[in-house]
Amino acid sequence: MPHYLRGAMSLSKKGVVNISSHGLAEYLGMVPWQIRKDFSYFGDFGKPGVGYCLSTLEGHIRRILKLNRDHQVALVGVGNLGCALLAYPGFSKYGLKITAAFDIDQEKVDQTISGVKVRRFETIKQIEQEGLNLGIIAVPEGAAQEVADALVQCGIRGIMNFSSRQISVPRNVKVIAIDIAMDLARLPYYVPAG
Amino acid sequence: MPHYLRGAMSLSKKGVVNISSHGLAEYLGMVPWQIRKDFSYFGDFGKPGVGYCLSTLEGHIRRILKLNRDHQVALVGVGNLGCALLAYPGFSKYGLKITAAFDIDQEKVDQTISGVKVRRFETIKQIEQEGLNLGIIAVPEGAAQEVADALVQCGIRGIMNFSSRQISVPRNVKVIAIDIAMDLARLPYYVPAG
Repeated sequence: MPHYLRGAMSLSKKGVVNISSHGLAEYLGMVPWQIRKDFSYFGDFGKPGVGYCLSTLEGHIRRILKLNRDHQVALVGVGNLGCALLAYPGFSKYGLKITAAFDIDQEKVDQTISGVKVRRFETIKQIEQEGLNLGIIAVPEGAAQEVADALVQCGIRGIMNFSSRQISVPRNVKVIAIDIAMDLARLPYYVPAG
Repeated sequence: MPHYLRGAMSLSKKGVVNISSHGLAEYLGMVPWQIRKDFSYFGDFGKPGVGYCLSTLEGHIRRILKLNRDHQVALVGVGNLGCALLAYPGFSKYGLKITAAFDIDQEKVDQTISGVKVRRFETIKQIEQEGLNLGIIAVPEGAAQEVADALVQCGIRGIMNFSSRQISVPRNVKVIAIDIAMDLARLPYYVPAG
C-alpha cells in the first residue's frame, strides 16, 4: 500500500489524472491482477473503462494507512544519522514530522537542529503530553533496548529502529527495523566480481 | 538469504553451534518449511537429526551472496547521511567497506571522515582503477540521476539509492532503493490514534 501511495503521488505530480490498472502496474513494475487483487481487499477503487482517479486513490490509501492526518514523531539519538533524519525533506509528503529530539550528549542538548530543539533523554516522559505516537531509534546498538523501553513507557506504539540490535517490545507495539548493512549486503549477489 | 545470514551470525555470537530448522524458524519468526524450501533451492545444508551447523550455514550463504570476500563501496554525498554511513560500524560484518567518498562541496573535499578522505565528485572516474564495485547515492534528489549515471560509467553495477528520486540505470545494474519516509509511513497503520 505505501508503494501504491508513492506511485500515485508521483504520477499526480507528473500531471496524470486517471490511470488504468495496466498503466499503474507498468509504472510500478508490477502485474495488473496483483494491483486489482490488493485494492479489492480494501474495496474496489477503480471504475470500469476509466481506471483509477489518482487523487481519489491517494485519498483512499491515505485513509487506509491512517496517513489522512499528521503524525508527530520523537527521535532519540541526534548523531549523524539523527541529524540526517531531522534535515530529511521526504517525511512531510506523508504528513510525518519529527517534533521532538532527544540525546544524552550535553553538547547536543539545547541545540536547535533543523528547527527542532534537542532535549535531554532523561526528560523523554514529556512526550506523553505532546500527542506523539511514533518514535525513531537512532542510537548506538548498545543503547537501543533502553531507548525502546522508554518510548514504550511514553505510550509510543510504532517504532522505527535504525540500530542493528533487535529490540524486544510488547505485542501491541509495531517495530520496523531498518538494517542498512543487510540491505547493502544484498547487492554483491547481483554484481560481477569487481 | 541476507536474513538467514544475519540470524546465523547473531546465533553464533550467542554461542549456538547447531540448530534445527524448527529452532532457526522460531528465532527468525518464520515457519520451518519455508526455511527448508529456501535452502533446498541452493542445495540442502542441513543434516537429518542434527540440523544446521551455523558456521557451515554461514559459509554457504556468504558464498551464495558473494559475501565470502570483501567489497569496496564508493559513497557519493557526504552530508549528514553520508557521514552517518561512513561512521556506521555495521557494514564490516558483511565484508563491506566504504573506501571512497565524493562530494561537490569544496568545504568537505580533502576532509578525512571516519578514515576516508573526501574527494571532488568530478574525480570519480578514479574509482575505475580502485576495484570498487558498489556505490551509495546519498545526495539530494535533484542530483541523484547525475550521480547514478557517473557511477554506472565508472563500472559500478550495484547501487544503493537513498534519495527519494527513482533513478534510471541500464538493465545490468542492480539498484536497491531505500525510502526512509515510505518505511516510516507504514507505521501509523498499526498504531492507535495518538
